[in-house]
Amino acid sequence: MARFADRVIERMRKLGHPLCVGLDPYLDQIPPPFRRGAMAPGRPETGQSVEEFCCRTIDLIATDVAIVKPQVALFERLGWRGWQVLERVIDHAHAAGLLVLLDAKRGDIAETATAYAQAYLDPDASCSADAMTVNPYLGPESLEPFLVEAENGDRGVFVLCRNSNLDSSVYQALETPKGPLFRVVAASLSRWQQRLAGGTTGWSSLGVTVAATHAEDTEQIRAALPRVLFLVLGYGAQGASARAAVRGFCRGPAGLEGGIVSSSRPILFPAAPSDLGAQGWEQGVRSALARATSELGEAVA
Amino acid sequence: MARFADRVIERMRKLGHPLCVGLDPYLDQIPPPFRRGAMAPGRPETGQSVEEFCCRTIDLIATDVAIVKPQVALFERLGWRGWQVLERVIDHAHAAGLLVLLDAKRGDIAETATAYAQAYLDPDASCSADAMTVNPYLGPESLEPFLVEAENGDRGVFVLCRNSNLDSSVYQALETPKGPLFRVVAASLSRWQQRLAGGTTGWSSLGVTVAATHAEDTEQIRAALPRVLFLVLGYGAQGASARAAVRGFCRGPAGLEGGIVSSSRPILFPAAPSDLGAQGWEQGVRSALARATSELGEAVA
Repeated sequence: MARFADRVIERMRKLGHPLCVGLDPYLDQIPPPFRRGAMAPGRPETGQSVEEFCCRTIDLIATDVAIVKPQVALFERLGWRGWQVLERVIDHAHAAGLLVLLDAKRGDIAETATAYAQAYLDPDASCSADAMTVNPYLGPESLEPFLVEAENGDRGVFVLCRNSNLDSSVYQALETPKGPLFRVVAASLSRWQQRLAGGTTGWSSLGVTVAATHAEDTEQIRAALPRVLFLVLGYGAQGASARAAVRGFCRGPAGLEGGIVSSSRPILFPAAPSDLGAQGWEQGVRSALARATSELGEAVA
Repeated sequence: MARFADRVIERMRKLGHPLCVGLDPYLDQIPPPFRRGAMAPGRPETGQSVEEFCCRTIDLIATDVAIVKPQVALFERLGWRGWQVLERVIDHAHAAGLLVLLDAKRGDIAETATAYAQAYLDPDASCSADAMTVNPYLGPESLEPFLVEAENGDRGVFVLCRNSNLDSSVYQALETPKGPLFRVVAASLSRWQQRLAGGTTGWSSLGVTVAATHAEDTEQIRAALPRVLFLVLGYGAQGASARAAVRGFCRGPAGLEGGIVSSSRPILFPAAPSDLGAQGWEQGVRSALARATSELGEAVA
């Protein structure tokens, strides 16, 4: 199989934009056509609602984006049935030709990190995705099992580096003798950027999160890691523009490239749930999707 | 229900030691009596093996310790069946009178963090535990949903602060203008220490991880957070002594108190798997448990 970075970049070149749709099935926001009575985590019907909502969203967007990003927490909240739903949603996305980036934010040490890595990056795992997000707080070596698994299975790993929530600056932007913490994290990934590089596009299958809301930090991260993929947070719901979202992208054969720009709620929930019938919701998703892909397409052109 | 801190501290006072047994069912280390053919994540028989191993361990230790700490990754690795096993292991531990601290190391923002918090700390959740571990990298406010859920349901939250793996120092011990990163994390939790304090023992239901292998750092954390519970890592397998493990504990009515000292492998896997029949394994667990409780009991006396 092609390397993760090549798979995602080549699709994005064809599509002409870097949008990734986040699959965040918040129970209280799932539109009425998908609701089945009281939406409560323990009810099997709630799992069915989540599955239908996610799969229908996938059907609507499959030909227009390269990759989707399920938020694991919202499936996990449903207990073991939620994991069955997540497996089926991943399968549905793959069958529709989409790549899947699991937003799991896992992090642990040694064999424990290996267990997490295998759960999501082993091609034979029941929840096998194309890439996942991981948390670096336990140290750079704690990330190694994820990177090894990614290397062996042609998967991708996105390390939390700089996030877009306001409060993430409290730790991530702390000054240290080697620069702010996020830059120390970025710098310590340099060796792995190399190991997961190569392939047809020249991009590494190592990625990091960057915040569209902190564009100057993004440039520092790009300077430290010239070939990592960015997972760009903060576009759309958090107010960053398409142009800010592609900061640190590099000129490629089809425009600026080198990252994935995530948007969830503005696309999944285009209006208040009570306002929408099935057709209204689908129309809203299509419009929001068209707006985002066109804005981002212009920004990378 | 009594507050988490009171439940765990009162039981530890009665037992006379702070040992917590980590339930880490590494597939390759589960002793022969519990193995059922090839131990592979996708096989239902493997889930049964893990369940029997964990439940039998619980039966062996239930009257001798206050709390167990299942490592979520090792259940998660088994897919949705692993979550069913984890639910049954939690139920078994509760039925045996044990408290359950889930080592999940979750961390995310806003409603997503709320979903994780509810999955493990909501008393009605299918995987409801007495406490869980969380990761602070996304900022102090990202922890708030966990702390709110803990407050509402009399649960506990342990924030990763200082870890025992060698490499965790790379980020956690980075110097900043406000001291090393772990101390900045500790200082920012002060307000929450207060909110989860009170009760019969005076201990907060907010906890932090500390490393028995970094005793001087533990004292800095205790100075910043005089009433948090410690989850002490690095005792046993990582070579720290019982005396180092209880550093930063405070004098209480029955000896030193204020933390939980975790040990997993030396108790679960007292000899190489191939050497052990069922009786040999049980004897090994009992001996290892007796050694640890007696060492730690002396250290807090």
